Amino acid sequence: MIYLTRRERFSAAHRMFRQDWSDDENKKVFGKCSNPNWHGHNYNLHVTVKGEMSKENGFVMNLDTLKSIIQEKVIRKIDHKNINLEVDFMKGLIATTENLAVAIWNELEPHIENEGAQLHCVKIEETENNSIEYYG
Amino acid sequence: MIYLTRRERFSAAHRMFRQDWSDDENKKVFGKCSNPNWHGHNYNLHVTVKGEMSKENGFVMNLDTLKSIIQEKVIRKIDHKNINLEVDFMKGLIATTENLAVAIWNELEPHIENEGAQLHCVKIEETENNSIEYYG
Amino acid sequence: MIYLTRRERFSAAHRMFRQDWSDDENKKVFGKCSNPNWHGHNYNLHVTVKGEMSKENGFVMNLDTLKSIIQEKVIRKIDHKNINLEVDFMKGLIATTENLAVAIWNELEPHIENEGAQLHCVKIEETENNSIEYYG
Amino acid sequence: MIYLTRRERFSAAHRMFRQDWSDDENKKVFGKCSNPNWHGHNYNLHVTVKGEMSKENGFVMNLDTLKSIIQEKVIRKIDHKNINLEVDFMKGLIATTENLAVAIWNELEPHIENEGAQLHCVKIEETENNSIEYYG
Amino acid sequence: MIYLTRRERFSAAHRMFRQDWSDDENKKVFGKCSNPNWHGHNYNLHVTVKGEMSKENGFVMNLDTLKSIIQEKVIRKIDHKNINLEVDFMKGLIATTENLAVAIWNELEPHIENEGAQLHCVKIEETENNSIEYYG
Amino acid sequence: MIYLTRRERFSAAHRMFRQDWSDDENKKVFGKCSNPNWHGHNYNLHVTVKGEMSKENGFVMNLDTLKSIIQEKVIRKIDHKNINLEVDFMKGLIATTENLAVAIWNELEPHIENEGAQLHCVKIEETENNSIEYYG
Repeated sequence: MIYLTRRERFSAAHRMFRQDWSDDENKKVFGKCSNPNWHGHNYNLHVTVKGEMSKENGFVMNLDTLKSIIQEKVIRKIDHKNINLEVDFMKGLIATTENLAVAIWNELEPHIENEGAQLHCVKIEETENNSIEYYG
Repeated sequence: MIYLTRRERFSAAHRMFRQDWSDDENKKVFGKCSNPNWHGHNYNLHVTVKGEMSKENGFVMNLDTLKSIIQEKVIRKIDHKNINLEVDFMKGLIATTENLAVAIWNELEPHIENEGAQLHCVKIEETENNSIEYYG
Repeated sequence: MIYLTRRERFSAAHRMFRQDWSDDENKKVFGKCSNPNWHGHNYNLHVTVKGEMSKENGFVMNLDTLKSIIQEKVIRKIDHKNINLEVDFMKGLIATTENLAVAIWNELEPHIENEGAQLHCVKIEETENNSIEYYG
Repeated sequence: MIYLTRRERFSAAHRMFRQDWSDDENKKVFGKCSNPNWHGHNYNLHVTVKGEMSKENGFVMNLDTLKSIIQEKVIRKIDHKNINLEVDFMKGLIATTENLAVAIWNELEPHIENEGAQLHCVKIEETENNSIEYYG
Repeated sequence: MIYLTRRERFSAAHRMFRQDWSDDENKKVFGKCSNPNWHGHNYNLHVTVKGEMSKENGFVMNLDTLKSIIQEKVIRKIDHKNINLEVDFMKGLIATTENLAVAIWNELEPHIENEGAQLHCVKIEETENNSIEYYG
Repeated sequence: MIYLTRRERFSAAHRMFRQDWSDDENKKVFGKCSNPNWHGHNYNLHVTVKGEMSKENGFVMNLDTLKSIIQEKVIRKIDHKNINLEVDFMKGLIATTENLAVAIWNELEPHIENEGAQLHCVKIEETENNSIEYYG
C-alpha cells in the first residue's frame, strides 16, 4: 500500500452560523467567525489516496488525473467563492472546516474509486494553526 | 541603522470592484476577485521599523510596543472582518492589496514615530504567491 | 470520526543530561545537547483531538476551548522557561522531546475528555528537521 | 510507543520512462516528467521510526545514529546525482516517487532494526504539492 | 511607489561546468554541482515589479498579466527541462543561479515595461538555504 | 551587482538583562525574555553578500566558501550554546537580536572581503514572527 498526497489551494469567504439561532447565540458559539459580513481564508486542501503501486508505470494513481478530479469537483466550485452562498456541496451545512472536509470527501470519493485507487484522507488547513482531517 | 520586522496575521473577506462600473467591467479588470458574494484570504502583515539601537537596552524599539500598535491600529479592525464594508481605514478605496498596504502605512506611521523609530516597510502577503510592499 | 489539530508555539531552554552520570557519560549519549550552560529551541506543539462532529454546531470540539486548555495547561508553564528547572510536569524527567510529548499528553488528556473529545496525538517539532509524535 | 521523525534533503535529476516503450507512449503516461534531457527536484525525505522510550536516556533511538544511517544509506548515494543512472538502489525501477519511497524503505529498514527501533514510515515530498508515504 | 511580487515555481535539471575545463578543474570549482549526469532542483522564482498605483483600479500592474508574462517567457521554457541543453536564454552561459537570474531579468524586462511598470528584482531560491537576487 | 544569500541555523539559550539593573527593572523592560533561568530559540541566520559576477565561473562568491566562513566564525561558536555565557563575540553586550546581528556582521565582514565580495546584510529570524536586519 502506497499513499499519494496532492495539495491544492483555494481562497474563499464564509461565516459560521445557524439561521435558526439568534445573533447572540451564534456569537456565543462561533465567536468572531459568525460575523454577518463574512470573513475568509486561504485554505490548503491535502487529498491522500492509497493503493497498490502499478507494476506497469510505478504509480499509485496518475497525478494529473488526481489533480483534474480535485480541480473539477472541488476547486472550480469553491475558489474565490462564498462557501455559504455559492458552493453546492455545502448547501444546508454549517460552514465549519469539519463539514467542509466531509463534504469534499463525498465529492471526491466516487471519482477516486473510478480510477482504481481509494480515498484515504481529506485534510484542510484553514490557517497555519488550525486543521481538520477526515478519513471517511 | 537596524531594521526590526514583526509579522501579524489576519483573515478577512473582500472583493475588488468599483461601484461606478458595471459587473462586466469589474469582471474584465478584476476577474474572479470581483465576485459579488465575496471571497477571502489569510493575510500575513510584515511591519518593518528602523532606527538606531538604544545603548541602554539594545533595542531598536520595544517589540511588545510594536505588537500592541499593530494589534490596536490594524488587526483589531480587520481580522475576521469584511475589508470593503467594515474597515474604517479602507473606506472609499478599492480593496486591492496595494491600497491596503498604503492604508496600513498611514494607520501605523504616526504611532511608530511616537516611539522614536521610523516606519520602513509595510509588506502584505495575500497568498503564498502574491505580495505587496510599500515604503512610504 | 473527525480529527482537529491546533498548533501552539513555545520557546524554551533545556539540556539533556542525567545527574547520576558524569559529564563525559552525558556528553557521550547526549552530545552537544548536554551543554551545562543550556541551549534552547522554538518548539511547535501540534495537538490533535478526535470525535464525532456535533450536529448542533458542526464542531468536533470548540477551537477556542482547545486553545485555552493548551495555553493554560502547557504554554503558560513552559514558554520562555527552562524546561529542566521550571516546568512542573517535567520534574524528574530527562528533558528529551520524547519525555516532553508524553508529559504534555498527560497534562492535556483529562481536560480534552472533559470536553467530550478524545486526545489523539501530541506532536512536537523541536527543529525543522526533528519531531516526535505520541498517541498515548 | 513513540514516533521520531527526521527530515533530510537531497537534490537530484530524474526522468520517468520505460525503455521498452516508445517516446510517444512514455509521453502519454508520464507527460513532461518523461523529458529525455532530464529534470530535477529538491526532495524532502522524512523518515519515521517507532519504539518504546528508553528509561535510561529518554530516547526512542539516538537521533545522531538515525541521521548517520540516512546519510550513509541514502543521501550520500542520491544527493546531486541522477536517480535513473547513478543510484544503485533504483536500478531497474521506474524513477517514480512511489518506487523511490519503497527502495529507500528497503535500504533503511535493516539498519533501523539493528538499533532496536522499527521503521514506521518513509515520506518523500517531491514538490510542495506532491508527496508519497510508504509504511512497509 | 509600490512593489508587487509574484512567485512562480519550476523544476529543472542542470550542472555547473565549463566545456573548456577538464573534469578535475570543473570538480574543483563547482564540486558536486558539476556532476556530468546532472542533478536538479525545485526553483522558486520571485519577480518584483514596481510603479505608481493606478487610481483607476488600485493596481501597480495587473497580476494576471504579470503571471502570463512570467509563464510565457520563463516557466514554459524551463519547467521540467534541462537548463544547460534546452533553455534558449541560457545558451552559452554557465548554469549558475547568478546567470539564471540575469538571464530571466533580460527575458522579462521589456515585457514588464510594455505594461507600464518597472522590473525591480528577480530572486531565485535554488534550495531552502541558497538564493540569488538581481536588481538590473 | 548580484546578491547571494545563505541561510544557516543555530539553536541557543539566552536571556535579556542588564546586571546593573534590578530584577524588577529587567522585567519591566525585557518582560518574559529576562527570565533568570534562560529560555532559547531556533535562530535562522541569513547572510547576504554582493559583488560582480565572475565571468570565469558565473559566481558572486563560491557558496562553499561562504558556508565555511559562516560555520567557522559564527555557527560553531553559538550553536547549542548559551549566548550570554559562552559566545565570545557577544561578551559584554545585552543579548538582543539587534546586538547579535551587529556582532555577527563584525565577525563575518573581514572574511567576506578577503574573498573579494562585500557583506550586504545580516538577517536573523528569532521566531517566525520576529526578525532583525543589519546592513552595516
